[in-house]
Amino acid sequence: MSSPPAKTHVSENRTDPAFLLACNCRKAPYVPVWFMRQAGRSLPEYRELRSRGTILEAIMDPSVAAEITLQPIRRYGVDAAILFSDIVVPLVAVGLEIEVSPGTGPVLAKPFRSRSDLSRLRPLVPEEDMAYVIDAVKLLRSELPTSIPLIGFAGGPFTLASYLVEGGPSKDFALTKAFMWSEPVLWREFLDLLAEIALSSLLAQVDAGARAVQVFDSWVGGLSPDAYARFVLPSARRIFDGLRALSVPSIHFGVGTGELLSLMGLAGANVVGVDWRVPLDIARQRVGQGRAVQGNLDPAVCLAAWPVVAREVRSVLKSAGSAPGHIFNLGHGVLPSTDPGILKAVVDLVHGESTK
Amino acid sequence: MSSPPAKTHVSENRTDPAFLLACNCRKAPYVPVWFMRQAGRSLPEYRELRSRGTILEAIMDPSVAAEITLQPIRRYGVDAAILFSDIVVPLVAVGLEIEVSPGTGPVLAKPFRSRSDLSRLRPLVPEEDMAYVIDAVKLLRSELPTSIPLIGFAGGPFTLASYLVEGGPSKDFALTKAFMWSEPVLWREFLDLLAEIALSSLLAQVDAGARAVQVFDSWVGGLSPDAYARFVLPSARRIFDGLRALSVPSIHFGVGTGELLSLMGLAGANVVGVDWRVPLDIARQRVGQGRAVQGNLDPAVCLAAWPVVAREVRSVLKSAGSAPGHIFNLGHGVLPSTDPGILKAVVDLVHGESTK
Repeated sequence: MSSPPAKTHVSENRTDPAFLLACNCRKAPYVPVWFMRQAGRSLPEYRELRSRGTILEAIMDPSVAAEITLQPIRRYGVDAAILFSDIVVPLVAVGLEIEVSPGTGPVLAKPFRSRSDLSRLRPLVPEEDMAYVIDAVKLLRSELPTSIPLIGFAGGPFTLASYLVEGGPSKDFALTKAFMWSEPVLWREFLDLLAEIALSSLLAQVDAGARAVQVFDSWVGGLSPDAYARFVLPSARRIFDGLRALSVPSIHFGVGTGELLSLMGLAGANVVGVDWRVPLDIARQRVGQGRAVQGNLDPAVCLAAWPVVAREVRSVLKSAGSAPGHIFNLGHGVLPSTDPGILKAVVDLVHGESTK
Repeated sequence: MSSPPAKTHVSENRTDPAFLLACNCRKAPYVPVWFMRQAGRSLPEYRELRSRGTILEAIMDPSVAAEITLQPIRRYGVDAAILFSDIVVPLVAVGLEIEVSPGTGPVLAKPFRSRSDLSRLRPLVPEEDMAYVIDAVKLLRSELPTSIPLIGFAGGPFTLASYLVEGGPSKDFALTKAFMWSEPVLWREFLDLLAEIALSSLLAQVDAGARAVQVFDSWVGGLSPDAYARFVLPSARRIFDGLRALSVPSIHFGVGTGELLSLMGLAGANVVGVDWRVPLDIARQRVGQGRAVQGNLDPAVCLAAWPVVAREVRSVLKSAGSAPGHIFNLGHGVLPSTDPGILKAVVDLVHGESTK
């Protein structure tokens, strides 16, 4: 049942970027840090660049996407870049009519309602369907310093399924879960299609220059461990199995996944992302030896004054301990109202504290 | 630091209702069952009764509120009634302008934004401010059989605070948490005021005939254990300390509280409610000896066909084990699209399985 963590094939030494060392549970010179949603909403230079057009238009323009990806690197001094994109992009690329509305999220005009809807999920051919993503990654490969790896990403199968079945964001995933419980065979087929699309997208991003990947199964924490093991883990494993031959580490993240952390580790990623609800010492136990953890400052803490933020950053570092295999991050995405100055100070504090 | 569970002062024997026996971790003839939100949306007789007027108008009419409370008793054969009301009622009763919109939830016209807003929270005088609640409870005392206890309820301090600060439902509680982290002294004062209002409401409901109470701190699972312990637990404890002298058991519930279960137990309730994310054997360990657990079927399971529901009900019973102190419930409220026939069958199955 258990898949071992994928071993990366590149040689690793102290000259490798701290982020990659930590992903592989190797000793790094300091605790690396990046922020989910570091590229975007909270940056004034982003809002200026994005004053016109939709978010999908920005994503589909390689030079704009690359520029937005680079903005937080310049501003914060983080240890990794993450491609400016969206988890629904590969679904748009295979022809689904999805809009991403500010403040709402992805909305699908015609939600999946019957067996025949699965035929709308044709396999992704990244070079043809989303050349703009590949071009953005290639641009970034040439513009980023070698010390700052680019993280490619994809949506996890439950989260993508939930948008397609609910037609948009959901509080309780009632329709999605009703499908899952009622039609387990069809559900598995559905999730495997989504996993294959995610995998194709990730492989193309790595091929173009991404040096790590993150699978955002953001809403999978809505499931019990038993339901996760039965209805999502097999499809999640397809993704990480498909990444195993590559020389890049993988990260697996969802919100509210306290009881799922060990199962998410079994899916095969090198790193399990943890939200702020689970102290990292407990998360490390659940994730198990040989896997790194990523997290987990509550993003809302960054809305407080600096002394409060600094205390909480130190608390996260203390809970993670000094063993290798910790990437500092927020427990979820940067909140739009966050002061960029606070995030810059967080990066400096994490670096400073962990080299003491 | 630890408060022992409140001991109820009534004599308990096999003629006591199964629900009360289970709340007090006494051996019951079968596993009692009720459903959060059993009174309401999913019942056609409710929708008929509620075809006119707002939800607050229905709550404020004692005969309507009592009738809606009784509907699920007749329909499902559950072991407890829960008063048809809303957690914001005591806040409306002290003069806040709150509307409860269908599908949205409570919306406060003027959210709390500064120190001076705390003065809008005057103490609750239930007999004057919400006589309609007391009258509904008195009506129910005379109409319910002694075998079916009425559960009174109130909102927990974090959840009430979140509605007042955000002005309505929230995904990330950014403003609420920013207040909490930034102004801990004022926050404590704020939460203590809310706890006192909740306690006054609960005491009045018990005085009028409620035989158990539940504190719904529904959204407290958005906090880390450390934040919960610092910012909510002291105020939650005020409520359960204030209930200790009464002869009624108390239940403490929130969603997504896996890492908080032991702390929520320490707040002093007899029973800790658990959502579907934590298997009940693990929840029992976290809650600790001497406290019962309530839960925890995923409400979305009830949207599947009966064989699936039956399997999952048995799985919950198995995970809870045969030790005294389990009240069967959903892990959160009944979903509006639930077939009432399924809920009736769940009650029968729980009763049947647990008397085998």
